[in-house]
Amino acid sequence: MHLDRLGIYPENIILFNYFIFLLNTYNIMLFTDSEIAELPSRYRANLINTITGYKSANLIGSRSSDGINNLAIFNSVLHMGSQPPLLGLLFRPLTVRRDTYKNIKNTGYFTVNAIDKSIYKQAHQTAAKYGEDISEFEETGLTDQFVNGFPAPFVKESPIQLGCEFKNEYPIAENGTVLLLGTIKLVAFQESMLQADGTLRLDKAGIMATVGLDGYALPEISDRFHYAQPGKTIRSIQDGTQES
Amino acid sequence: MHLDRLGIYPENIILFNYFIFLLNTYNIMLFTDSEIAELPSRYRANLINTITGYKSANLIGSRSSDGINNLAIFNSVLHMGSQPPLLGLLFRPLTVRRDTYKNIKNTGYFTVNAIDKSIYKQAHQTAAKYGEDISEFEETGLTDQFVNGFPAPFVKESPIQLGCEFKNEYPIAENGTVLLLGTIKLVAFQESMLQADGTLRLDKAGIMATVGLDGYALPEISDRFHYAQPGKTIRSIQDGTQES
Repeated sequence: MHLDRLGIYPENIILFNYFIFLLNTYNIMLFTDSEIAELPSRYRANLINTITGYKSANLIGSRSSDGINNLAIFNSVLHMGSQPPLLGLLFRPLTVRRDTYKNIKNTGYFTVNAIDKSIYKQAHQTAAKYGEDISEFEETGLTDQFVNGFPAPFVKESPIQLGCEFKNEYPIAENGTVLLLGTIKLVAFQESMLQADGTLRLDKAGIMATVGLDGYALPEISDRFHYAQPGKTIRSIQDGTQES
Repeated sequence: MHLDRLGIYPENIILFNYFIFLLNTYNIMLFTDSEIAELPSRYRANLINTITGYKSANLIGSRSSDGINNLAIFNSVLHMGSQPPLLGLLFRPLTVRRDTYKNIKNTGYFTVNAIDKSIYKQAHQTAAKYGEDISEFEETGLTDQFVNGFPAPFVKESPIQLGCEFKNEYPIAENGTVLLLGTIKLVAFQESMLQADGTLRLDKAGIMATVGLDGYALPEISDRFHYAQPGKTIRSIQDGTQES
């Protein structure tokens, strides 16, 4: 087969490159605010929930005044500071029953438990609307564990467990959500993840990330970088060392 | 070589299993609040920044009153709602110069641009302390792009671009951070990621997640699940369909 049988002439290559250029130029979808507002509700929820990127995957453990151990999946845990160690949980509007919120307000304590690849299906199942007298631990087969006298239940199967105390809450006027702040009082994790500088290598424990409303992803850590400085080339510190 | 030369007798297997049991039982590290407080500052920052899991990876574009196009990496973009489409950005305490914050307050607009595997090194470099008259676009080689008349610069290379308008801010009394809220006014993305129900398949564009202060991870989406219902088995909807 000769090249000319395939039509590979210089002028065709130019046409082909122009075609690729058009593809690269025109495969962008764009929505303005009025177009976003007109999307069907579920479609818009899926789109807007995925466009900000991957989210954390955690199970929030709490205990009701009646001693029912509650467990609920959250993708809205937000790191807020390390001194003091503080995290945020964004709650959807409190217009329906929210057992986790009620339990935290009543008892003052909750736990945050990382979701790994061995428990992510059970973790998703905690989102089902069980009655408030039902423990999601029992329904999903995850094991409630009480650690070091902490008053809220941890997930025994989880590779990272955080014990938190209610600190404050910020009602978000724009949409009725509530940002609840907790101080981290207890940290327990599988030692195999720990690097020399205190960083946890999350992929060693198969910890997952969430996507949108119902997606689960398994990340692999590509690299760690030395802190950036003007005019200096990025340096890898994947082994966990940082020059000061 | 016979098995007995290796010492593989039933009683040794029992001993071996007990050893593995001990390993599994005792490889947990636990820190109480006073132990966390006593950790060296950088070690604590690394630990507390990784324990809440993977975070999103975005570049925030803004424009100064003097027309300098600013670009800064953020791992604290928080989905806050889809009707209206609202996101949050957590700023560290405003005790030092924060160009992005200042530009947003001055102009009312900013952009959020997803970081994929082709630009994550350049994205990290935007964290270097450049002067306020320096554009991180020029310093890192990323391309500023103005889309649809939107008044803040987008990152041309980014597979997801969001144009946002300042909505409100919530100063966090506990540690001096600021949660800034923006309404999403424009959404542009590579069409190849879009699934039938509006969900974006982030891994098709190689979008990354961040870990701690300086880590970058590439997730692969494992599955999507139908919304959970009591007593029903989890069902996969990886193809993007959801029964109602």
